[in-house]
Amino acid sequence: MITECMVLNEIHQPLEFSEIELLAKDRQVLVENKASALNHRDLWITKGQYANIQLPCILGSDGSGIYEGKDILYLPATDWGNNPNFQGKGYNILGMPSNGTFSKNCFIYPDQMYHKPEHLSYVEAAALPLAGLTAWRALKTKGQAKPGENILISGTGGGVAIFVLQFAVAMGLNVYVTSSSEEKLHSAYELGAKGGINYKEENLSKKLLAISEGFDIVVDSAGGPNSGQLLKACRSGARMVMYGGTKGDIQNFSPQILFWKQISLLGTTMGTPQEFREMLDFVSKHKIKPVIDSIYELRDVNEALKRMESGMHFGKIVLNTSR
Amino acid sequence: MITECMVLNEIHQPLEFSEIELLAKDRQVLVENKASALNHRDLWITKGQYANIQLPCILGSDGSGIYEGKDILYLPATDWGNNPNFQGKGYNILGMPSNGTFSKNCFIYPDQMYHKPEHLSYVEAAALPLAGLTAWRALKTKGQAKPGENILISGTGGGVAIFVLQFAVAMGLNVYVTSSSEEKLHSAYELGAKGGINYKEENLSKKLLAISEGFDIVVDSAGGPNSGQLLKACRSGARMVMYGGTKGDIQNFSPQILFWKQISLLGTTMGTPQEFREMLDFVSKHKIKPVIDSIYELRDVNEALKRMESGMHFGKIVLNTSR
Repeated sequence: MITECMVLNEIHQPLEFSEIELLAKDRQVLVENKASALNHRDLWITKGQYANIQLPCILGSDGSGIYEGKDILYLPATDWGNNPNFQGKGYNILGMPSNGTFSKNCFIYPDQMYHKPEHLSYVEAAALPLAGLTAWRALKTKGQAKPGENILISGTGGGVAIFVLQFAVAMGLNVYVTSSSEEKLHSAYELGAKGGINYKEENLSKKLLAISEGFDIVVDSAGGPNSGQLLKACRSGARMVMYGGTKGDIQNFSPQILFWKQISLLGTTMGTPQEFREMLDFVSKHKIKPVIDSIYELRDVNEALKRMESGMHFGKIVLNTSR
Repeated sequence: MITECMVLNEIHQPLEFSEIELLAKDRQVLVENKASALNHRDLWITKGQYANIQLPCILGSDGSGIYEGKDILYLPATDWGNNPNFQGKGYNILGMPSNGTFSKNCFIYPDQMYHKPEHLSYVEAAALPLAGLTAWRALKTKGQAKPGENILISGTGGGVAIFVLQFAVAMGLNVYVTSSSEEKLHSAYELGAKGGINYKEENLSKKLLAISEGFDIVVDSAGGPNSGQLLKACRSGARMVMYGGTKGDIQNFSPQILFWKQISLLGTTMGTPQEFREMLDFVSKHKIKPVIDSIYELRDVNEALKRMESGMHFGKIVLNTSR
C-alpha cells in the first residue's frame, strides 16, 4: 500500500511529504485515515527530546478514519501489559517507532479500533484519543474524582488540561485553573471553570486558597519551583496528579504538609484499554466535544508543530488528512 | 488523683518533676502507667518546633500499664474522624495539649485501651503504639506491601523505620536500608535486612539499584535533596511513602520519572483505630519484639531526650515509670 504521508527523516528538520509503501506487521489492518491530531510527544521527537528515537518515521498518535465502511478512532498505543497500575516494557505508542497517523492511510491492530462517538466529526474524534485517555486516567483512576470536590488544573490550554476540565465539569466538580494568559483563563471560564489565577502572580497558594477554600484534586503538568505552592493549596487527603513536567524538577515541596495532610502525589501517563473504553462511553454519554484550536492540512504539519511550540494554542491542533 | 510526673513548663527548658493533681475529662478513666516511650514529637515540642504548643503539659504519647487488673497499652490519639484517608480537625494526640504518659498515672478514654500483647513486657509494649501504628499505615495501607516485593527504608535507627523493617521482614519482603552509620546498617542486617548503603555516598541511586534491582516501596522520613535519588531507584508502579521530613523540602524530584513509571508519593502520619487493631494482631501473631535502644527512669527523661537528640539511638528509648 503506497500512501501520502509526512515523514520525519532527521531530528531538527521539517517533516517531509512522501509517498511511501506501508507494510503491515502480523495482524495489522489498513485504515483510511481522515484526521489526525498533534501531541507534545510529536514536537519533542522532532527536537530530539525523547527516548530511543528511531528514524525515519511517520509521527502521529491520534487519528480517526474508516475501516470497512465503519467510522472509527484508534487506541493510541498497544501492549499495555498485565498490570493496570503501570505500562509494561513492551508498551508501544503509535507514531515512533511504529509508523503513525500523519498519513492518509495507516496500519493498526484490530484491538486498537473503537467506534467513533456519533456526535463527533472526524476532526473532533481525532482530537480525543491520547489526550482524552491521559485526562481520564489522571482524573478518575488516579484522582478518584467525586462530584462536589474542588479541583485545580494548572496550565489550562493544552489538550489534556482541557479534557480534564471538561470531564470534571461534567462530573460535577468545582473547577479552578491557572494560566499565564488572561485570554486562556476566560476560555476556561466559558467551559465551566469557576475561577482562575495567573500562575506568575506572587503568593500563588494564598490566592488559590482565597478563590477556592482548597483543593481535593490538583492536576499538574508543570512541576518546577511552583509545585510547593500547589501543595500548600491542598486540603487534607488531596490527590495531586502529574502527567508532565514542563517546568522541570519538583522543588520546594514540603514533606510536612504532605504527611500531615495525608496528601498523595501521583504520576500518570496514558492509560489502559479499559480506561479508554470508559472515557469514550463518558464522552458519548455527556456529548462532550473536544476543543479544537486549529485545523491544518496534512502537508502543513510543520506549521501545526510551530503553533504547538508557540504555546499560544487553546485546545487540540488537528490535521485534516482526507484531501 | 495526685501523681508523680515530669512536666514541661516552658519550651527550651528541662522537664521538671512534679506531683500534680490530674483531672479526668468526661469519660476518661485512670490507669496505672508502668512504662512510656519517647517520640520525636516530644523532642520537637520541648524545642518549640511544633504547632499550637500549650504549656504546662505532661508530654508522652506512648504507654503501657494496668487498668482494673488488666495489662493494657494505649491508642496514642483520639478523634481520628470519619474519613480513613485523613485525620479530622478534632484529632488529638496524647501528651500535648492533653496530659500524656511521662507520668506514673494517666487518664485515657476507654476506647484507647487495648490488651497488651502477651509476649511483650510493659517496657516493650510501651515502645509499640505510636511508632508501630505509623509504620503499619505506611507499609500496609499506603505502601500496599506484598510478599516478594523490594522495599527500601531510609535512615534506619528510628522507631518507625525499625518497625517497618520488622513488619516487612515478617511479611516476606526483601528489605534494604540506608543509614549514615555502618553500625546501624549492621544492626538492620541482624533484623533481616538484605542489604544497605550509607546515604552519604555519591551516586546513591546507582548503588541502590546495584544491590536491589529497584524498589517497589520506599519508606522515607528525610526528604531533602536526596529525594530524587530515591525516586531514581524506584521500579514502575512504586509507592514512595513519607512520614517525616528531617532533611527539609523535597528537591530535584523528576516529574518525568514520576509519571512515566506511574510512581506515587504518599504522605502518611499515625493511623486509624482499625489500623492500630490490625497492627497489634500482626505483632502478636508474628511475636514481634520492639527493638529497645535504652531504658531510663521517669525522672531521667531529660537524659532520654538528649539521647534522642544525639541521633545515636537504634530502636525505641523507653521510660520505666513503675518505680
